[in-house]
Amino acid sequence: MMEWKRKDLIALEDLSREEIELILNTAKSFKEVSTRAVKKVPALRGKTIVNLFFEPSTRTKTSFELAAKRLSADVLSFDVSTSSISKGETIVDTAKNIEAMKVDCFIIRHSVAGAPYLISKNVSCAVINAGDGCHEHPTQALLDLFTVKEKFGRIKGIKISIIGDILHSRVARSNIWGFKKLGAEVTVCGPPPLIPLDIEKMGVRVTYKIEDAIENADILYILRLQKERQRENFLPSLKEYSKIYGIDRDKFLKLKKKVFIMHPGPMNRGIEIKSEIAEKDNSLILEQVTNGIAVRMAVLYLTIGSKR
Amino acid sequence: MMEWKRKDLIALEDLSREEIELILNTAKSFKEVSTRAVKKVPALRGKTIVNLFFEPSTRTKTSFELAAKRLSADVLSFDVSTSSISKGETIVDTAKNIEAMKVDCFIIRHSVAGAPYLISKNVSCAVINAGDGCHEHPTQALLDLFTVKEKFGRIKGIKISIIGDILHSRVARSNIWGFKKLGAEVTVCGPPPLIPLDIEKMGVRVTYKIEDAIENADILYILRLQKERQRENFLPSLKEYSKIYGIDRDKFLKLKKKVFIMHPGPMNRGIEIKSEIAEKDNSLILEQVTNGIAVRMAVLYLTIGSKR
Amino acid sequence: MMEWKRKDLIALEDLSREEIELILNTAKSFKEVSTRAVKKVPALRGKTIVNLFFEPSTRTKTSFELAAKRLSADVLSFDVSTSSISKGETIVDTAKNIEAMKVDCFIIRHSVAGAPYLISKNVSCAVINAGDGCHEHPTQALLDLFTVKEKFGRIKGIKISIIGDILHSRVARSNIWGFKKLGAEVTVCGPPPLIPLDIEKMGVRVTYKIEDAIENADILYILRLQKERQRENFLPSLKEYSKIYGIDRDKFLKLKKKVFIMHPGPMNRGIEIKSEIAEKDNSLILEQVTNGIAVRMAVLYLTIGSKR
Repeated sequence: MMEWKRKDLIALEDLSREEIELILNTAKSFKEVSTRAVKKVPALRGKTIVNLFFEPSTRTKTSFELAAKRLSADVLSFDVSTSSISKGETIVDTAKNIEAMKVDCFIIRHSVAGAPYLISKNVSCAVINAGDGCHEHPTQALLDLFTVKEKFGRIKGIKISIIGDILHSRVARSNIWGFKKLGAEVTVCGPPPLIPLDIEKMGVRVTYKIEDAIENADILYILRLQKERQRENFLPSLKEYSKIYGIDRDKFLKLKKKVFIMHPGPMNRGIEIKSEIAEKDNSLILEQVTNGIAVRMAVLYLTIGSKR
Repeated sequence: MMEWKRKDLIALEDLSREEIELILNTAKSFKEVSTRAVKKVPALRGKTIVNLFFEPSTRTKTSFELAAKRLSADVLSFDVSTSSISKGETIVDTAKNIEAMKVDCFIIRHSVAGAPYLISKNVSCAVINAGDGCHEHPTQALLDLFTVKEKFGRIKGIKISIIGDILHSRVARSNIWGFKKLGAEVTVCGPPPLIPLDIEKMGVRVTYKIEDAIENADILYILRLQKERQRENFLPSLKEYSKIYGIDRDKFLKLKKKVFIMHPGPMNRGIEIKSEIAEKDNSLILEQVTNGIAVRMAVLYLTIGSKR
Repeated sequence: MMEWKRKDLIALEDLSREEIELILNTAKSFKEVSTRAVKKVPALRGKTIVNLFFEPSTRTKTSFELAAKRLSADVLSFDVSTSSISKGETIVDTAKNIEAMKVDCFIIRHSVAGAPYLISKNVSCAVINAGDGCHEHPTQALLDLFTVKEKFGRIKGIKISIIGDILHSRVARSNIWGFKKLGAEVTVCGPPPLIPLDIEKMGVRVTYKIEDAIENADILYILRLQKERQRENFLPSLKEYSKIYGIDRDKFLKLKKKVFIMHPGPMNRGIEIKSEIAEKDNSLILEQVTNGIAVRMAVLYLTIGSKR
C-alpha cells in the first residue's frame, strides 16, 4: 500500500485517487474502534492537536475532538471568534505562537478561502482544513465518500446529484472533486443564480430541474441552505426555494427505485429537506456523522504520523 | 445487592427506595477516590460522556465533568445556549447527531421540563437529567441524601425543612421525592405564592412561618432565591423576603438544639442566607459539593455500566 | 538542591534568588518533554488543576493547560468572565466551592491586584497567580528569565531595557523583581506619564529616551501597548507613541552590536513593534512561548508536589 507523504490536508483538489483511497482504507480500520467497549487506541498518545476555529462551529469541531481523543491525543479546542487569542494579531502570528508550544497539528476553519493554506506554509506541523470560505471542506467529502463506498461497495459509476446552493458551498466543491476522482457521475442542481458558471469544467452535469436530478440519481446529496443568501438576493424567497428544491415525500413517490439521501448537517427541516424524508430508511445522514469520526481519525493519524 | 436496570436517570419520582440506596451505596465507595493522591480509577476508560447544557451552568457541569474524568472517561462539554450546535435543529436532532458519534451518555440540562425525557426516548445511550425546568434535578437530591445519611447515619426520621421558592424549584421537588421515599419528615416553608397548592399530596407538611420551620428541623435546606421572581410579581421585594425568610444569626439564637444548614449553591449571601450562617460549623454546604462528585461518579458508573 | 516549600506562587517579589533558580532548573529538565514523540510524563497523573480566569485570556490559559496535560493532570478551564459560576458569589465562595470538589491547584487571573492572594489565604490547595491587575504576572517573568538564561548562559550582568507602559504593566513589575534578584541591570523606558514615580527604588535605571534604552541593552523587552490607555489620556496618540517608542529597523541600524528582542505577546504589529523586527533572527519571541510550557510545568510540579 502507498504511504502518506503530505504534511497537510488542505483540499481534495490536490489529492490523487490513490491518496483518497489510502484515507478511506485507513478510516475503515479505525471505524471499528468506536464500536468497542473501550473506544480508544494509543496511536497518538502524547500528541497535541489544536482546533483553531476562526468561524464558529460545534459539530465539526466536536467530531475532530472525539476523533483525536479516541487516538489518545491531547486536544485544545477554541473558538477564535469568541476568544481573545487573535486580538491585534495576524492569523499567521496566532498560529506560529501556538506552534511554539510544540503542537503537532492544527485543525483550521476560517471564513476566508485559503486561510488554512496560508497557515500551512508558515508552520512546520500538520494543518487540516476544516472548511475555508467557499473553497473546500475536505474531511466532509471524505466522510461522504466513505459512506457511499460502505453502502454501495464502490464509488465508480454511482450517480450522485448535489442539490442546493452550489455556488457558495465548500461541501459541494470538495464532494465534486472527490466523487469525480473516484469515478462517480455527478449532477448539480439548484436555482440558476446558485450554480457557478463554467461548473461543467469540473466534469459535472448541470440541471435546474429537480425532477431530472432525482431521476438520474442513486444518491441525493442535499446541501444546507444558508438563510442569509436570501438577504443577499441570491434567492427570491425561502418558501419559493423550499417548494421547488426542497426534498419531500411527493418528489419521492414518483420514483421506481430506491434513492438514498445524504446531508452534511445541520438540517433546516422544512426548507431544503422535509421531516418525513430525513427519517426514512434510505437516509444515510446519521451514518455520515458516524463515519466522520473514523475518517477524521484516519486523517489525523496519517498527517501526524507522517512527521514521525 | 440489587442491580441497576435503568438506561437513564430522569427523576427521583421514578425511583424505588432500593434504587436510591443502590446509588448512595455506590457513591460511598467512590467518595474515597477523590481523597487519593492519584484521584482516578479506570472504570469508564474509553467511554464518551457528553455534557449537553441547553441552559447555562458551570457548577453542575463542572461537577459532572470531574466525576467523569475521575472515572477515566472522555468528556465533551458544551453550552448549547452559546454554541451553534442547535441552529435550526430540534433538540432530538442535536442529540441523535451527537449519538451517531458513538457516545455513551448524555448529561442534559434544559429550561423546559421533560426535555431530558424526550431525548432519552430517542437515543439508545444513557441520559442523565441535570435539571429540567421546574421539574427535577435528581443528582442534586441524591447528593443531598448522601450528605444527610453520612452526617446522621440514617435518613429515616430526620426532620428537614425546605425554605424558599418551592413552586419553581426542581431542587425542592427532587428532594421531596427523595427524602420522603427514604422516610424523612419533610416540611416546606416560604411565602404563600411560592408554595404550590396541593403540595401536601407529596406527603410534606406546609408552614408559612419560618420559626415553625426552624423549630421542627434537624436540617434547614435553604433554596437559592431566583431574583427574577420579583420581576414576575411572585415577591413583594427582596428586602422583605430576606427579612422574613432569610436565615441569619437571630433566627438561630432562639434554638436549643443544633440545626444543620444545607444549600444547593450558589448562595445569594444577604438574601436567603446571611454570611455568618454560611460559615458556621453546622453548615454542610461544602460537604454537599464534595459529595456531588461521588454521587455523580456513581450515577455515571451505574447508567453507563448497565449497558455493557 | 533546595526544596520548594511554598503552597502558592503569587509574586516574584516574595521569592528568594534560590527559589527562582529552583524553578528555572526544574523547568530545564521539563523542556525536553515537549520535544519527545510522546510529549507526556506521568508526574501529576490523577491531579486536578483548575484554570480560574476572571479576566479573559486564551494565550496564558492555553499555556497552563498544555503544561498540565503534559504532566498528565486533569484540567478544568473556564472563563469566569463569560460563565455563570460567579453569579451573586464572592470570588472566595467560588474558589471554596470548586476546592470542595477536591482539586489540587487553582491558576487564577483577575483584573484586581491581590485577588489570587486573597483566594490563596482561603483555600488549602495550591494557587498560582496568572496575572492580577497591575500587580504581578510571575510565570511570565519566570519564562523570560529562563529564555535569557538559556540564550546568554547567565542572567547576572545582562543589560535589559523594558520599553513601554511600565506604570500599568504586571509583566514589567514581575520582570523587574526577577531580573534584579538574579543580578541583571534593568532600565525602564517610556513616556513620562507611563513610568511610575519612585520606580528607581526597585533598583532600575529610568530613561525617557529610546536611543539611550537601546544603546545600553543586550535585550529590549518590548511591552504590549494597551490601546485603551489612549482613551484614559495617558498617551497623546498611538501614532505619536509608535513613532517615538515603536521599535523599527531604523532604531536598530545605528547599533554596532546585536540586541535581542523580547515581547510577552500578543504583539500589536505597527504600534510598539514593527513587523520586520519581530521576524529578525535576534527575536526571542517564539522561544519565550516555547519556554512558557516548561516553566509552567515546573511551577505546577513544584507547588502541587509540595503538598504530597
